Amino acid sequence: MSANPREWLRKNSRSGMAAIAPLPASRKVYVQGSRPDLRVGMREIAQSPTPAAFGAQQNPSLTVYDTSGPYTDATAEIDLEHGLPALRAAWIEERADSEALAAPSSAFRRARLADGKLATVRFTPARGPRRALGRGSVTQMHYARRGLVTPEMEYVAIREAQRFDELRASYAAAGLLARHAGQGFGARLPERLTAEFVRDEVAAGRAIIPANINHPELEPMVIGRNFLVKINANIGNSAVSSSIAEEVEKMVWATRWGGDTVMDLSTGKHIHETREWILRNSPVPIGTVPIYQALEKVGGRAEELSWDIYRDTLVEQAEQGVDYFTIHAGVRLAYVPLTAKRLTGIVSRGGSIMAKWCLAHHEESFLYTRFADICEIMRAYDVSFSLGDGLRPGCIADANDDAQFAELRTLGELTKIAWQHDVQVMIEGPGHVPMQLIGENMDRELDACSEAPFYTLGPLTTDIAPGYDHITSAIGAAQIGWYGTAMLCYVTPKEHLGLPDKEDVREGIVTYKIAAHAADLAKGHPLAQLRDNALSKARFEFRWDDQFNLGLDPEKARAFHDETLPKEAHKLAHFCSMCGPHFCSMKITQDVRDYAREHGVGDLQDAVRAGLAGKAAEFRQRGASVYEKT
Amino acid sequence: MSANPREWLRKNSRSGMAAIAPLPASRKVYVQGSRPDLRVGMREIAQSPTPAAFGAQQNPSLTVYDTSGPYTDATAEIDLEHGLPALRAAWIEERADSEALAAPSSAFRRARLADGKLATVRFTPARGPRRALGRGSVTQMHYARRGLVTPEMEYVAIREAQRFDELRASYAAAGLLARHAGQGFGARLPERLTAEFVRDEVAAGRAIIPANINHPELEPMVIGRNFLVKINANIGNSAVSSSIAEEVEKMVWATRWGGDTVMDLSTGKHIHETREWILRNSPVPIGTVPIYQALEKVGGRAEELSWDIYRDTLVEQAEQGVDYFTIHAGVRLAYVPLTAKRLTGIVSRGGSIMAKWCLAHHEESFLYTRFADICEIMRAYDVSFSLGDGLRPGCIADANDDAQFAELRTLGELTKIAWQHDVQVMIEGPGHVPMQLIGENMDRELDACSEAPFYTLGPLTTDIAPGYDHITSAIGAAQIGWYGTAMLCYVTPKEHLGLPDKEDVREGIVTYKIAAHAADLAKGHPLAQLRDNALSKARFEFRWDDQFNLGLDPEKARAFHDETLPKEAHKLAHFCSMCGPHFCSMKITQDVRDYAREHGVGDLQDAVRAGLAGKAAEFRQRGASVYEKT
Repeated sequence: MSANPREWLRKNSRSGMAAIAPLPASRKVYVQGSRPDLRVGMREIAQSPTPAAFGAQQNPSLTVYDTSGPYTDATAEIDLEHGLPALRAAWIEERADSEALAAPSSAFRRARLADGKLATVRFTPARGPRRALGRGSVTQMHYARRGLVTPEMEYVAIREAQRFDELRASYAAAGLLARHAGQGFGARLPERLTAEFVRDEVAAGRAIIPANINHPELEPMVIGRNFLVKINANIGNSAVSSSIAEEVEKMVWATRWGGDTVMDLSTGKHIHETREWILRNSPVPIGTVPIYQALEKVGGRAEELSWDIYRDTLVEQAEQGVDYFTIHAGVRLAYVPLTAKRLTGIVSRGGSIMAKWCLAHHEESFLYTRFADICEIMRAYDVSFSLGDGLRPGCIADANDDAQFAELRTLGELTKIAWQHDVQVMIEGPGHVPMQLIGENMDRELDACSEAPFYTLGPLTTDIAPGYDHITSAIGAAQIGWYGTAMLCYVTPKEHLGLPDKEDVREGIVTYKIAAHAADLAKGHPLAQLRDNALSKARFEFRWDDQFNLGLDPEKARAFHDETLPKEAHKLAHFCSMCGPHFCSMKITQDVRDYAREHGVGDLQDAVRAGLAGKAAEFRQRGASVYEKT
Repeated sequence: MSANPREWLRKNSRSGMAAIAPLPASRKVYVQGSRPDLRVGMREIAQSPTPAAFGAQQNPSLTVYDTSGPYTDATAEIDLEHGLPALRAAWIEERADSEALAAPSSAFRRARLADGKLATVRFTPARGPRRALGRGSVTQMHYARRGLVTPEMEYVAIREAQRFDELRASYAAAGLLARHAGQGFGARLPERLTAEFVRDEVAAGRAIIPANINHPELEPMVIGRNFLVKINANIGNSAVSSSIAEEVEKMVWATRWGGDTVMDLSTGKHIHETREWILRNSPVPIGTVPIYQALEKVGGRAEELSWDIYRDTLVEQAEQGVDYFTIHAGVRLAYVPLTAKRLTGIVSRGGSIMAKWCLAHHEESFLYTRFADICEIMRAYDVSFSLGDGLRPGCIADANDDAQFAELRTLGELTKIAWQHDVQVMIEGPGHVPMQLIGENMDRELDACSEAPFYTLGPLTTDIAPGYDHITSAIGAAQIGWYGTAMLCYVTPKEHLGLPDKEDVREGIVTYKIAAHAADLAKGHPLAQLRDNALSKARFEFRWDDQFNLGLDPEKARAFHDETLPKEAHKLAHFCSMCGPHFCSMKITQDVRDYAREHGVGDLQDAVRAGLAGKAAEFRQRGASVYEKT
């Protein structure tokens, strides 16, 4: 790979990047909002008709939530070197509460821009930063509390509704509306989502819309337990490996498979430039952990960190457009010793940096003492807090201990302070937790943090399967999502072992889409079961292509199928590889159903009760020829 | 691959089969029971010492439950053509309640043996079948109810205890005994497992030891919710693909990764011969679905099935040594119509066969009407029932419906009948169930089936991820295992798409070992957390090899690690690829811990409270040189 991301991207634009082709049988559709420039992109998956053997029927296209932005729009111009269109620019300007700055406020950024050696790796054209006028606030919470419905809130409401009202009749005609009652543990999932509902949730702090005014490219999304469960994908080079272009590709790739937000955890030497490339091309909110970069600025010596360096880093990143910051302000001096007897101590990088700083200075963490100052910065750009769990357990043995819950209580205090500044907040959670202790994490978070959205890493439900921690953690993620966690941070198969490559990112994301969707189903989200029903109907009717296309990973499903039955003809066959052509349980079920229909017994039970032996003989005659037909 | 399994196996014995090398750093150990021929194989995993930086310490070898039989014993002679030693032969003979038959009782088997064309595929030497004397019973339940502790029960008690009493002190010295309280939902997990406890559980029907007297090669194991959660792996060729030798290899492979039992679901033309090869080489119980073979005997025409054909098949398989039969005796005529309005009807092959038969004849299922006769056969060989859930839901929409629960109630009635015959019983469960409906499945099973062990397929918690159904189902499997399911039937990534190959079998098994272990942890199994603790300690101390070796799949963990940091030296490095050499959170934690130790503050909190600013300065001095050292 070229050291110059520009060249690499030029070579790999559109034609070269698998990440930017539409998914099979899918097209991008846009739902028009209340203003011309408010158009919400969704993915429409076409289906084929039901074969005659199963009672010939049209099957409606399914519209699903789509995180991939313009990349999967076959009609969109993709130019990674110039970034995505600034979808929200007019919305932000019209509010007339922010201004374009003449120059970046961050000294570090100014130095980077002045450094000629960075020309080949720098994203150009640079976007000039904006900031709130005066000491004002430009946060979605600020607007929500004043009763305003922003375009962002409307966008989110339309997005979450997935065109259901428009399509309900076609779904109903195909018999796709059946759904189970959910168990919501206090979640309130309205049957009809409105922008006003979004506003009220944001105003109450129960949901956030991470949307920095300096990231106008993003398509607004909401994180809260009364909405669809979201997932985050981490990317980022470390000092050891990976390049800018690879990270941009990973970000696009992550949104393709369903990443709702992406955290850029880069720690390499071009951390600032990498972030700029990612932000300018990202349709989803980008989160970071600013302390990582601050630490690089002091040569990796945690004890040399200072508020000034950290502050400049916050401003630097806020003016680039980072949408949420993980800030480990709950790692207080007094909590650090609580970790000394743990089996695996402090495993959060941010947590350990601050722990080291606190002990070295024997002072309270500056993230804690300067928290109000941090809020002032965040609200000037609408950066949301992701209050970091620096003392999260790193193994099963350390789960739910004093250190963890002491920090959680502090995060609850800090939430209230952030809200006083109208800054949006979500709360990070563990980590490694055995199943029987997961519920307590959710309960305590809701209680301590006044229902601010919970954002957890997994949790991993056992430590004994390195190489499979996407699975050990999906088990916990599905559960905590069900209990009310609003966003699940993915774990890839490489967790604990190495850095994820593209395939690991895909595996991790699909795994977490599963966990999030399983949680939506369990909570009783009104739209969740629709896709399960459509896919199951396709499966039953041997519409193989539809089954693949409706799934979370059409390519893998098709490839797996083709390994056993590679011939194209088999995709139309009324049997599958598990049973072979001479016996098929689904075919028998269809016989049962046909029998019921032909004899006019909508509920065959009646026929059985009546003891219609004659009809049984008739069925026997028909059934005997079932296999000759296929 | 040769059509002749003998030749293939000859070529692939020991040297060729990856399946029969010991796992890394592992050796087979045997725990001696009360009689010379009762030696229980386990796997001992060696660990390296803690490096000096983390306080130089010896780390004890860990002894873990091992399903792989003699295959991973470097000193054992493996000869797939002659099968495994008959471990239990003397135990069975000594009971003097069974006899060697002069000839097989099954007409079908006699015909196969007489068919010269089968010589190349037939396993030889054939084992002559045994049967209970007179109309007697040779079931473990029969013995248990009479107060007998059989060698099988003793074996199981030793096996489940994993040498803990012997090793407790060494584990304690290494700080590995910490454990959380579990939530057992009524499970009773004794701190010290005795053979008498096993006997009482078997007598009460809460546990089974599937152990056909014609499968003396097997190492006894127990299935019950008051024991470790078990997993089953399905193998089996279909008419479309796969051969005998491949299936034998898959069986060995399945036991290597942790399959506690294996179901042979073959449907091909050498189904009888395949089964013989598998049984003679299997150290784990083998289950089958006899109706599959019976159906082949009538050319795939379900309506031509008869009690006589089925009966002969049961006897044929029982005399080969099959340890448990899935029998869909709960699919009653009256329940079939309840499935007509389902989204995916009847998805169980056995269920649909019987549904078709019932409708064709308009008669009650012969599996139901002949249930007592079936019990008579089962008890003469000690074949356990796995009462099949022929009406299990095949999609989320159909979960927990009337058809499913009607059948479950019938399985409860049949359980009581089986127990009257001293026949061991477990109950099969779904299938596809969203998370909020899983608990009801467990509760109803325990209630309807008088606490007979539950054995579930997953359940899958969503339908939308073909290609990832090992994961959609592991989420449900972990949960239902926690709630009390005794054995989890694995699902591979190929579910719904094709037949699993060796790598799919491995992926499915490891995924289900995760689910089972997560369930053991959550229930509070007294030994479960030990391995998590050992692995996490190794992880914290950067003992990479130990971390790999203690995991469920050492090879994959090592391969993933080496992808990012391929050099051998890195496995000793005190950092990992996620953070790189210049920053490492675990190193910082160790600094915190060292600081606490050096300053004599076992609980550093005291130091913090006392405000020892001087010590902080000292720490700063030390900490500043942390990175130079690595």
